[in-house]
Amino acid sequence: MSESLCTSSGKSGLPPGSLIHVGEVLEPVGSISIVDYSKGKFEEKKLQSIDEIIQYKDSDTVTWVIIEGLTNVEIVERIGAIFGIHQLVLEDILNTNQRPKFEEYDDHLYIVLKCLLPGGENFTVNNEQISLLVLKNFLIMFKEKKDEVFHPIRQRIKTSSGKFVSLGSDYLAYAILDFIIDQNFILLDLLDESITSLEDSLFEGEPTQDMLYKIQRLKREMISIRRYVSPVRELLAEMIRSESDLIHENTHIFLKDVSDHSIRVVESIESYRDILTGLLDIYVSSVSNKMNQIMKVLTVFTSIFIPLTFIAGIYGMNFEYMPELKWKWAYPLTWAVFIIIPLVLLAFFKRKKWL
Amino acid sequence: MSESLCTSSGKSGLPPGSLIHVGEVLEPVGSISIVDYSKGKFEEKKLQSIDEIIQYKDSDTVTWVIIEGLTNVEIVERIGAIFGIHQLVLEDILNTNQRPKFEEYDDHLYIVLKCLLPGGENFTVNNEQISLLVLKNFLIMFKEKKDEVFHPIRQRIKTSSGKFVSLGSDYLAYAILDFIIDQNFILLDLLDESITSLEDSLFEGEPTQDMLYKIQRLKREMISIRRYVSPVRELLAEMIRSESDLIHENTHIFLKDVSDHSIRVVESIESYRDILTGLLDIYVSSVSNKMNQIMKVLTVFTSIFIPLTFIAGIYGMNFEYMPELKWKWAYPLTWAVFIIIPLVLLAFFKRKKWL
Amino acid sequence: MSESLCTSSGKSGLPPGSLIHVGEVLEPVGSISIVDYSKGKFEEKKLQSIDEIIQYKDSDTVTWVIIEGLTNVEIVERIGAIFGIHQLVLEDILNTNQRPKFEEYDDHLYIVLKCLLPGGENFTVNNEQISLLVLKNFLIMFKEKKDEVFHPIRQRIKTSSGKFVSLGSDYLAYAILDFIIDQNFILLDLLDESITSLEDSLFEGEPTQDMLYKIQRLKREMISIRRYVSPVRELLAEMIRSESDLIHENTHIFLKDVSDHSIRVVESIESYRDILTGLLDIYVSSVSNKMNQIMKVLTVFTSIFIPLTFIAGIYGMNFEYMPELKWKWAYPLTWAVFIIIPLVLLAFFKRKKWL
Amino acid sequence: MSESLCTSSGKSGLPPGSLIHVGEVLEPVGSISIVDYSKGKFEEKKLQSIDEIIQYKDSDTVTWVIIEGLTNVEIVERIGAIFGIHQLVLEDILNTNQRPKFEEYDDHLYIVLKCLLPGGENFTVNNEQISLLVLKNFLIMFKEKKDEVFHPIRQRIKTSSGKFVSLGSDYLAYAILDFIIDQNFILLDLLDESITSLEDSLFEGEPTQDMLYKIQRLKREMISIRRYVSPVRELLAEMIRSESDLIHENTHIFLKDVSDHSIRVVESIESYRDILTGLLDIYVSSVSNKMNQIMKVLTVFTSIFIPLTFIAGIYGMNFEYMPELKWKWAYPLTWAVFIIIPLVLLAFFKRKKWL
Amino acid sequence: MSESLCTSSGKSGLPPGSLIHVGEVLEPVGSISIVDYSKGKFEEKKLQSIDEIIQYKDSDTVTWVIIEGLTNVEIVERIGAIFGIHQLVLEDILNTNQRPKFEEYDDHLYIVLKCLLPGGENFTVNNEQISLLVLKNFLIMFKEKKDEVFHPIRQRIKTSSGKFVSLGSDYLAYAILDFIIDQNFILLDLLDESITSLEDSLFEGEPTQDMLYKIQRLKREMISIRRYVSPVRELLAEMIRSESDLIHENTHIFLKDVSDHSIRVVESIESYRDILTGLLDIYVSSVSNKMNQIMKVLTVFTSIFIPLTFIAGIYGMNFEYMPELKWKWAYPLTWAVFIIIPLVLLAFFKRKKWL
Ligand SMILES: [Mg+2]
Ligand SMILES: [Mg+2]
Ligand SMILES: [Mg+2]
Ligand SMILES: [Mg+2]
Ligand SMILES: [Mg+2]
Ligand SMILES: [Mg+2]
Ligand SMILES: [Mg+2]
Ligand SMILES: [Mg+2]
Ligand SMILES: [Mg+2]
Ligand SMILES: [Mg+2]
Ligand SMILES: [Mg+2]
Ligand SMILES: [Mg+2]
Ligand SMILES: [Mg+2]
Ligand SMILES: [Mg+2]
Ligand SMILES: [Mg+2]
Ligand SMILES: [Mg+2]
Ligand SMILES: [Mg+2]
Ligand SMILES: [Mg+2]
Ligand SMILES: [Mg+2]
Ligand SMILES: [Mg+2]
Ligand SMILES: [Mg+2]
Ligand SMILES: [Mg+2]
Ligand SMILES: [Mg+2]
Ligand SMILES: [Mg+2]
Ligand SMILES: [Mg+2]
Ligand SMILES: [Mg+2]
Ligand SMILES: [Mg+2]
Ligand SMILES: [Mg+2]
Ligand SMILES: [Mg+2]
Ligand SMILES: [Mg+2]
Ligand SMILES: [Mg+2]
Repeated sequence: MSESLCTSSGKSGLPPGSLIHVGEVLEPVGSISIVDYSKGKFEEKKLQSIDEIIQYKDSDTVTWVIIEGLTNVEIVERIGAIFGIHQLVLEDILNTNQRPKFEEYDDHLYIVLKCLLPGGENFTVNNEQISLLVLKNFLIMFKEKKDEVFHPIRQRIKTSSGKFVSLGSDYLAYAILDFIIDQNFILLDLLDESITSLEDSLFEGEPTQDMLYKIQRLKREMISIRRYVSPVRELLAEMIRSESDLIHENTHIFLKDVSDHSIRVVESIESYRDILTGLLDIYVSSVSNKMNQIMKVLTVFTSIFIPLTFIAGIYGMNFEYMPELKWKWAYPLTWAVFIIIPLVLLAFFKRKKWL
Repeated sequence: MSESLCTSSGKSGLPPGSLIHVGEVLEPVGSISIVDYSKGKFEEKKLQSIDEIIQYKDSDTVTWVIIEGLTNVEIVERIGAIFGIHQLVLEDILNTNQRPKFEEYDDHLYIVLKCLLPGGENFTVNNEQISLLVLKNFLIMFKEKKDEVFHPIRQRIKTSSGKFVSLGSDYLAYAILDFIIDQNFILLDLLDESITSLEDSLFEGEPTQDMLYKIQRLKREMISIRRYVSPVRELLAEMIRSESDLIHENTHIFLKDVSDHSIRVVESIESYRDILTGLLDIYVSSVSNKMNQIMKVLTVFTSIFIPLTFIAGIYGMNFEYMPELKWKWAYPLTWAVFIIIPLVLLAFFKRKKWL
Repeated sequence: MSESLCTSSGKSGLPPGSLIHVGEVLEPVGSISIVDYSKGKFEEKKLQSIDEIIQYKDSDTVTWVIIEGLTNVEIVERIGAIFGIHQLVLEDILNTNQRPKFEEYDDHLYIVLKCLLPGGENFTVNNEQISLLVLKNFLIMFKEKKDEVFHPIRQRIKTSSGKFVSLGSDYLAYAILDFIIDQNFILLDLLDESITSLEDSLFEGEPTQDMLYKIQRLKREMISIRRYVSPVRELLAEMIRSESDLIHENTHIFLKDVSDHSIRVVESIESYRDILTGLLDIYVSSVSNKMNQIMKVLTVFTSIFIPLTFIAGIYGMNFEYMPELKWKWAYPLTWAVFIIIPLVLLAFFKRKKWL
Repeated sequence: MSESLCTSSGKSGLPPGSLIHVGEVLEPVGSISIVDYSKGKFEEKKLQSIDEIIQYKDSDTVTWVIIEGLTNVEIVERIGAIFGIHQLVLEDILNTNQRPKFEEYDDHLYIVLKCLLPGGENFTVNNEQISLLVLKNFLIMFKEKKDEVFHPIRQRIKTSSGKFVSLGSDYLAYAILDFIIDQNFILLDLLDESITSLEDSLFEGEPTQDMLYKIQRLKREMISIRRYVSPVRELLAEMIRSESDLIHENTHIFLKDVSDHSIRVVESIESYRDILTGLLDIYVSSVSNKMNQIMKVLTVFTSIFIPLTFIAGIYGMNFEYMPELKWKWAYPLTWAVFIIIPLVLLAFFKRKKWL
Repeated sequence: MSESLCTSSGKSGLPPGSLIHVGEVLEPVGSISIVDYSKGKFEEKKLQSIDEIIQYKDSDTVTWVIIEGLTNVEIVERIGAIFGIHQLVLEDILNTNQRPKFEEYDDHLYIVLKCLLPGGENFTVNNEQISLLVLKNFLIMFKEKKDEVFHPIRQRIKTSSGKFVSLGSDYLAYAILDFIIDQNFILLDLLDESITSLEDSLFEGEPTQDMLYKIQRLKREMISIRRYVSPVRELLAEMIRSESDLIHENTHIFLKDVSDHSIRVVESIESYRDILTGLLDIYVSSVSNKMNQIMKVLTVFTSIFIPLTFIAGIYGMNFEYMPELKWKWAYPLTWAVFIIIPLVLLAFFKRKKWL
């Protein structure tokens, strides 16, 4: 997610609804697979051509079509033709810089949001845009990458004996949304770890330029995550408010549940934001503190030795008439001064709590 | 509450409504006790099996069931079966990372919030999730820990002659909510003490790295508390707005009262937040102030002795032709310079108010 | 107002409506006095027992009962009994940590807010909770302290020929609210003075630790004041919206007027808050500026004398073969160097604007 | 506008509606003048007594009465009597600390706001409270000062052939409001200049204490301006919403236009506020930058000469057995060291980019 | 966009609706061109006189009139006369300091907003005010500059076979709005680059005064952009809500799409704002960090050599009775001390992690 926060559509001047893929290419070829299920039935299949889905169109089973890779614009165009999807929706599916949103059409619903997964080390986040077209007994999912992220949901359908398989495509959509938001919690756990470890190293060791860099990087990631997650609350609220026939009454309570989760995610992000801001303040204060300590050492050393050096300098002068130079006790007395002055100064610094 | 602000549900991919306990285990075994009361009746009992509560189900007395420890999932499942509670509610009861909320169902209400109690020293806060199922003449409370926190309410029921025992389960729910929010005031008093003591030590002594650590810790605790308490206002507002038969007309005024308290708690937290933020600013300023003082000492010492040392150095040179070295008054005159220069500089620094 | 921002009710576990005084005791014994007036009538009296007010209950005159000191719980209880006041209202009257609010009951109104008065020197603020029960032709005022704060209103009633005495208890309530808010303006004038004097001393003199302390103290006071004053806007808005018969149509315009004032107070506080925040920023910048000046002095002194001392040190070495030592012009030439080097450096520092 | 942000009414305890002037006295005697116009008629006159306006009361011409100076309370009182204005409105006219607002009465409208004009140099702002009473064919304007600020409007009426003179008092009120808000734009241009010049001098020269003072002063002025201007948006929105017969349908579009302008003013102020805040941050950073440069100079000087001085010190020691002192090449070798050490250190500092 | 954020209208005292051009003159002479199209027809023409457009007024084709340069007030006046546009709208067209807005009239719509284009290097932004008058089958566009910005749209019309040419002037207005907002994305990409490059140079090299300057400049540009873009969301929301016949039902979905884009633009700006603010904090911290390093070098050098110089100074004293001077091993022993002291100090500094 170190990518740009906002990418130009690269389409200025093109008519709206022009179907070209916009965004980073995460998967060069598009692949199509389906999961078709009902009570007692479960079929998993890879399709060669998008037209094979037509046979599932009017069956009573729920059909989950998974398109992985968005560069093959033809697939999206064909789906638009088969199911009568508006050009602007198809365009949104292909443009992977969407703000999460929910749109309701006469005979289908369109949901788009980001699936956030932890990347490599050092708290990096990978995001993938997920588009869902919810139709009667049909759910078409568009993903940027080819991977097994949603495998657990397939597994749940396969092993489900009751509820899942007896409910419609709206419940499947809910299950996917719930899964995506659950991934956010995993991310937040990693974020928590990163922040805590940063906090510990700040209080234990020296403030370094590297910590500063880590703080800034975490802040940036958090700004990204918030932008991707924050509109999801709204998306879910609109789904709950929706009066579309495609969302059954008894799915509402499930959507309310996942909506609660999305609010919790956003509130957590806000909290972490406050903590990170606090951390930077602490960092600056720590640096100042260190500086104070350094300056104290410098000041103590300098203040003690500079007068002594001066005194030694006096009796290093070569004037002919310096009576002290001849005194027997002059040297030991000077030593006494060399010892008394530092003691007095040390006491003074002690009282000032500089030592 | 130094725990993570947000814990992954650990359930990704599991079907919603899967009943497993999520969160820290605060009490390994579940214990069940009941308080059954009406005007003139008071019974307190420990139950061996959850099925014993069936006998209280249709009586006219108010029955307060207290489940302590949430690892015994069977108890929750059984209650769900006996009273017809939705799977998602049962799931929420078992997942101790809930955001406080109020949910209204046909024949029961579900309330979940956090009971915050002061932990050990240094202003730490322990939180426990409390779930309440309010049914007609029945209140089922789920707690994470086995302790005597709610003992005072039991005592009030026992000794009540009038109102408490003649009112229903909604009044009992109110009494519990009021009690939980009262605990927040106790917490805020401790917070006030911690902040004031920090403030005092900041203005009296030296700014230390330890203070910084305390400020950050208090800030973190405050962020946690706010997250737990802030949604309670909303929860109570929804209860007051609710038109459920389970909340009687004359309970509204009590809920309004506790709602006032919850607003006061949140406003106090906001105020303390502002004060803590101010404290960090003061801290940074103090550190800078100290640095200034240190630098003044360094500058005064250096500025005074460095020219003197130089002068002594001059007459420590071994040139053959240095007429001054032979002058009779050269040495006393040099001493005069050694005395005059510091006096002039001290006057200069005095005027600059560095001394 | 250096007291805690939030005090625990000290009542956890007590039944709601338990009448005990909560808060600092500002007046140990309760005193009761009344002002009874109508067109052409004015009576002022101290009562020995609260029951004496019963005789005024059904008269056509307006009766203003003033209870000073809240420790005598019996008085409040008795008033509750005589006028049928809800237990929770009585409890709120006795608990002096209320958030300002307005509550409407069938035959009475309850208003509670803080009267803020300037304390001693250094901008300290004393607050007193004022509760008003507005009934038909009856206004009962509860104060924490026994003093003459509201004397001017008594005076106005006494000398009023027309409007005041011909209007009801709602107008009296308005007059009291208007008076309380007018006190805030006096307070804000004092605050303005404190801030301006702080600002002046910051721009004229040295930034001291004491200023920092004053800024923090003012900030704290402001946070308190805002918390006490901010909900008053809401209180007045609710009174204006209220459709209670107890507030006559022609009192609305007066309430609107005082509402305007309360908005002005809050906006002023917000402005002062911004100014104080700015002041702290200025403070930090000033400290940094001073540091720069100190460092310049140090750097100039050190940079000038350190090379000179080194040169003197060279010719203080005791090598046998140092030809310069024997040169006739060596010593004057060295002096020339001693004069040229500082001049060059001074020019350099001048150009850098360090002098 | 370096005056207090909030002035106590100085009227605590006085009955509301007591007519005394509150605020700074900007004009000691009140002067009355009128402009009476209709299509084809234009009359300008100074009145000796306020009662002379009665003759214009029922004419069909629009009469603009201008009262300059508010210390003559009688004038205001008399107007109240002639036109039946509420005592509280009269009080507001006399109290020059009003928050801008719009009030609607049965047969008149009351508008109060601040006219902000640039003061002397250094971006100071003078404010004057303008009250407008809009009646049928009558507009009474109350100003604090006697000046020619509104002369351009008189001129426009005089020279108008069509629209202005054929429209009523509501259009005149609009023209005045539009004129007042136009003054704000002039003010904002000056503010822009001040900020830009400050910004330039910050980036070009040294950060000085004087800049800090200017930033704080501009901030304060901005806080004042915002407080005076921000409620004007609301004022105009209420006028537009108003259903009073005194505001004709075709005046709405003009009010909408001036409302747009007031929004633009407030948004500009917010932007300048952000810029000023940024400027202070830049200031602090610049000071730190300068400090770094100073410290680098100090460190480079000290680090180079201090080891050299030490070496010179070694061979200035007077031990009898120091073989080096007798070596022939000792002195030139020492010089070699004196040259090599600084070169090495300079290279080191160069690499660290301190030079 | 380094111009003033807010320019006085330069029209104070002029009657509203006075048609004079206000703002910077970007194009001295006005030029008029038209694009007239319908299904199967496409005509592009430069007009000599504005009156030539009358012939297109009642045709069924869509006519897009493009006026470039606003100094020729007559053109605007004439259009007002031909199409019956309100004087205030004409005034807004000529005043190039408008806040983006949408206004609905009986037979035309008025849209005004800013087209932001990247200027030269260093992320500067040029803005041009675009006014659109949408009438039935007619769209009049007013631009400040003469350029080819909207050429791509003309191209799309020319090559369109279906939708564009069969839809009305509302779709053309949409296409223009969509195009303008697409330009913002290009701008944001450049902004992203600028910030990222600034961030990189901050973490890699030294914090310089020049970076500070760049941060402030980017901040200022961002404040400008936000002010120009933020009201566009509102503008589009009002267009969507509008019930004017001039916006057809099937254009709504397109407006909704561009509205989504405008929200994304504003959210991106907010994110960049947060990142820039963070960058300044990082800058300040980096400067402090550098200072710490400088101070460490200074302290280490000073602390090591100052005691040594003192010791050398002692044995440079010329007292007669200094027994050590005669000892054989005195000099080597002193050297031992000269070696041991630095080693001890270096170990000490190593442990403090200053090296
Ligand atoms: Mg598009
Ligand atoms: Mg789109
Ligand atoms: Mg992407
Ligand atoms: Mg979930
Ligand atoms: Mg959002
Ligand atoms: Mg924050
Ligand atoms: Mg779930
Ligand atoms: Mg749940
Ligand atoms: Mg927990
Ligand atoms: Mg309570
Ligand atoms: Mg919240
Ligand atoms: Mg705050
Ligand atoms: Mg209570
Ligand atoms: Mg209460
Ligand atoms: Mg109190
Ligand atoms: Mg008042
Ligand atoms: Mg509030
Ligand atoms: Mg503010
Ligand atoms: Mg008043
Ligand atoms: Mg008033
Ligand atoms: Mg004034
Ligand atoms: Mg104007
Ligand atoms: Mg406001
Ligand atoms: Mg804004
Ligand atoms: Mg800001
Ligand atoms: Mg205008
Ligand atoms: Mg306009
Ligand atoms: Mg312009
Ligand atoms: Mg677009
Ligand atoms: Mg806006
Ligand atoms: Mg923000």
